[in-house]
Amino acid sequence: MPAEATPPTGDLPPEEFRKYARETVDWMADYLGGVGELPVLPNVAPGDVRRSLPEHPPEVGEPLDVVLADFRALIVPGITHWNHPAFFGYFSITGSGPGVLGEMLAATLNVNAMVWRSSPAATELEELTADWLRQLLGLPETFDGVINDTASSSTMYALAAAREVAYPDAHERGLFGQQPGRVYASDQTHSSIEKAVLTLGLGRDGYRPIPSDREFRMRPDALSAAIAQDRAAGLRPVAVVATLGTTSSSSMDPVAEIADIAREHGLWLHVDAAYGGPAAIVPELRSLLAGWERADSIVVNPHKWLFTPVDCSLLYCRRPEALTRAFSIVPAYLSAPDGSETRNLMDYGLSLGRRFRSLKLWFVLRYFGREGLIARLREHVAMAAWLGEQIDASPRWVRVAPTPLATVVFRYVDPELDGPAQDARNMAILHAVNSTGSAYVIHTVLSGRVALRASIGNLKTTMDHVADLWTLLEDAAADQAG
Amino acid sequence: MPAEATPPTGDLPPEEFRKYARETVDWMADYLGGVGELPVLPNVAPGDVRRSLPEHPPEVGEPLDVVLADFRALIVPGITHWNHPAFFGYFSITGSGPGVLGEMLAATLNVNAMVWRSSPAATELEELTADWLRQLLGLPETFDGVINDTASSSTMYALAAAREVAYPDAHERGLFGQQPGRVYASDQTHSSIEKAVLTLGLGRDGYRPIPSDREFRMRPDALSAAIAQDRAAGLRPVAVVATLGTTSSSSMDPVAEIADIAREHGLWLHVDAAYGGPAAIVPELRSLLAGWERADSIVVNPHKWLFTPVDCSLLYCRRPEALTRAFSIVPAYLSAPDGSETRNLMDYGLSLGRRFRSLKLWFVLRYFGREGLIARLREHVAMAAWLGEQIDASPRWVRVAPTPLATVVFRYVDPELDGPAQDARNMAILHAVNSTGSAYVIHTVLSGRVALRASIGNLKTTMDHVADLWTLLEDAAADQAG
Repeated sequence: MPAEATPPTGDLPPEEFRKYARETVDWMADYLGGVGELPVLPNVAPGDVRRSLPEHPPEVGEPLDVVLADFRALIVPGITHWNHPAFFGYFSITGSGPGVLGEMLAATLNVNAMVWRSSPAATELEELTADWLRQLLGLPETFDGVINDTASSSTMYALAAAREVAYPDAHERGLFGQQPGRVYASDQTHSSIEKAVLTLGLGRDGYRPIPSDREFRMRPDALSAAIAQDRAAGLRPVAVVATLGTTSSSSMDPVAEIADIAREHGLWLHVDAAYGGPAAIVPELRSLLAGWERADSIVVNPHKWLFTPVDCSLLYCRRPEALTRAFSIVPAYLSAPDGSETRNLMDYGLSLGRRFRSLKLWFVLRYFGREGLIARLREHVAMAAWLGEQIDASPRWVRVAPTPLATVVFRYVDPELDGPAQDARNMAILHAVNSTGSAYVIHTVLSGRVALRASIGNLKTTMDHVADLWTLLEDAAADQAG
Repeated sequence: MPAEATPPTGDLPPEEFRKYARETVDWMADYLGGVGELPVLPNVAPGDVRRSLPEHPPEVGEPLDVVLADFRALIVPGITHWNHPAFFGYFSITGSGPGVLGEMLAATLNVNAMVWRSSPAATELEELTADWLRQLLGLPETFDGVINDTASSSTMYALAAAREVAYPDAHERGLFGQQPGRVYASDQTHSSIEKAVLTLGLGRDGYRPIPSDREFRMRPDALSAAIAQDRAAGLRPVAVVATLGTTSSSSMDPVAEIADIAREHGLWLHVDAAYGGPAAIVPELRSLLAGWERADSIVVNPHKWLFTPVDCSLLYCRRPEALTRAFSIVPAYLSAPDGSETRNLMDYGLSLGRRFRSLKLWFVLRYFGREGLIARLREHVAMAAWLGEQIDASPRWVRVAPTPLATVVFRYVDPELDGPAQDARNMAILHAVNSTGSAYVIHTVLSGRVALRASIGNLKTTMDHVADLWTLLEDAAADQAG
């Protein structure tokens, strides 16, 4: 044990750390084992949690017993339990025990994988796990992967690379005086695409949503028409973003056709497969993503549907030199002292600080193995298919979008109600289901009308949970109708 | 215990998780207790770690015993130990036991604080800890804080807000056709400022470094002159970034004078206090930051010099409406189902995915309390002062910059050597010290010449470690001279 100053000016001594960390692990194991018994949504109003806590920071350090007790008594009751097996909101992401172990170790090592020598193992394990996942996804070796925090960052980096290619002299001169540019994505695409376009200085006008078809997939003919129209209007097409697994309906854009158009017009093709990407691990689902291997860049988030705690977003790029052109600036204090040429991951994005995120992904990929991942993803898809079948078989419910993956979008229909009343009825059903605390679903808007949405992605979710959700929905609908 | 499918398609069952997590905690406690005995830098060549690992992901899941054993045998020997008490590289950041407990819990809860209802406690604890830290820093209540991953992100967000203000119609039209803009920062500023300017579409020309004085502080007269010159040339000044604690020398820009100039010209003032900010907690150091309270935005990183595991970067902003104008896009699936108006932290930056980072910060602030933080920061400053005194008292060493905080920059001087030979000598000393494995210092370049740099920020660092470093430096210098 190294010499330590007396607390509170020193760190928790190692033996005290061991004691409190064991106590914490016991809570964690109990929580993960029992989360299904808790209400999914907390029973709190805005401000409740904050009001339960002191307004000012403590003058004197407090015992960790007290802090841990406050965590259990004041924080946990204000948590929305994403771990709950009946959490069907957003994309139902799930961590996993092995992933948590990886995060525990990463937090302890506390290294920064900005340059190779600031932590060689962190840089090389990131390269390795990115390549392992690439192999699992069936993407060609020409894709070079790095791990970012979120798809919002990965997509922004990809579009920054696209901007470098479309405006070779903007790197020096900026966008001032350049021909206005356009990025295309379907009208179903994630808000992160528009945020990236705004961030990069292209403005809202630089983002052109392309109409989608009745199954919420980008219409290639509309994309071609938009590009032609924009070119004629003196605009510069920069990139097209195809989405594999849109947020509202998990629709899969026809990426092969979009790739043809991107190639024809010399546009960067970015594929947002943050949610849908892991489906490529499953042999019978891989064809849903056919054509994505022709993209310039692809984002896949293991923290969504691959059992890795947030945050973990893979950005694969076939033109990494465009990425590093956008982001590589090496100051003296980060230059290699021996002038050696190692690959420094800070050069592939905005953030210099880079956590050791590959560790948790390595734990997850090793714990499950390819077969385990395939088996579990299949189960999620099967559970979603079952829910879809119940909806299809029920006279008062309709599925409003296909279910290619594990997210089901549906609506209660009462023929006596007009559109707005129908929307209100569905929102009432949503509130009734969610207020039971036994399940959590969210709403979205498709074709201008409210739809309900259940995303199945948690490791703890079983057929029983999905069957219970269906019962809750039916009961709520009957109550509202009665 | 909820119903579980059989592994590997299910998660680690809770009792197995408990077992492996306890084993992991034991390793963590042993590591934190014994890291001072390990070499600071690993003895690996580029590619060694990756070559020690399988090229392909496993087909079948592996036992966690094997994964944990591989972690210890193959990963740890490739780690640069930022936890080592004689790690003096970069900014010597340090986590802490309480911070690690917070990360363990955050990884387990695995919530996303994107909107209030996606985890009320995560949103409200973020608001609370941001405000606690604001109080500790002595900043006025008008500053609104959010937690981002890194200062690179925080600064980019701040400059995006500045761009909104400087170009009110660029939000719609982009920067095309706008008057070219300029962001000013000292020639000592962090590379993240230039990366942010590039990201935002202003180009390298949009970044104008301002000369610094002999103590590496931005020269206000040079800033004024640059602004006047740029205005005359038809450019639009957008923002000025003042740095409190530059990376090379920890110099503190004269932020009060810079604030006067920013106000005079209507420029957004962003203060990069990622490293230096925590000094404001210490009463006798607060005056070093005088004037920063007049900034429009400030970044302070608790993961640098405030004992919080990476990543945790506070962005304080007095004009949050400019931030949300830059980044708020609310799609249907994230809109509040009851139309309620809660504050959604996703609106203050690019990333939709937001980890529960406030939990570790809350643990750290409560464990140390104001007094504990002050005491420990004082110790770091005192140790740095001691090292500076040894250098000043030694005929062959010079301090090349003042030491306002806890980072010492110095150089070995042999009057018989010319500049390049002097540089080579200092690099040789650096290599000799680092190759002992007993300490890690880095080099930088100041006024065109190599300097060595020791940053003192680890919780485990004692005077003995600093004294040992001085002995290592003296011995290495004597060997090289002999």
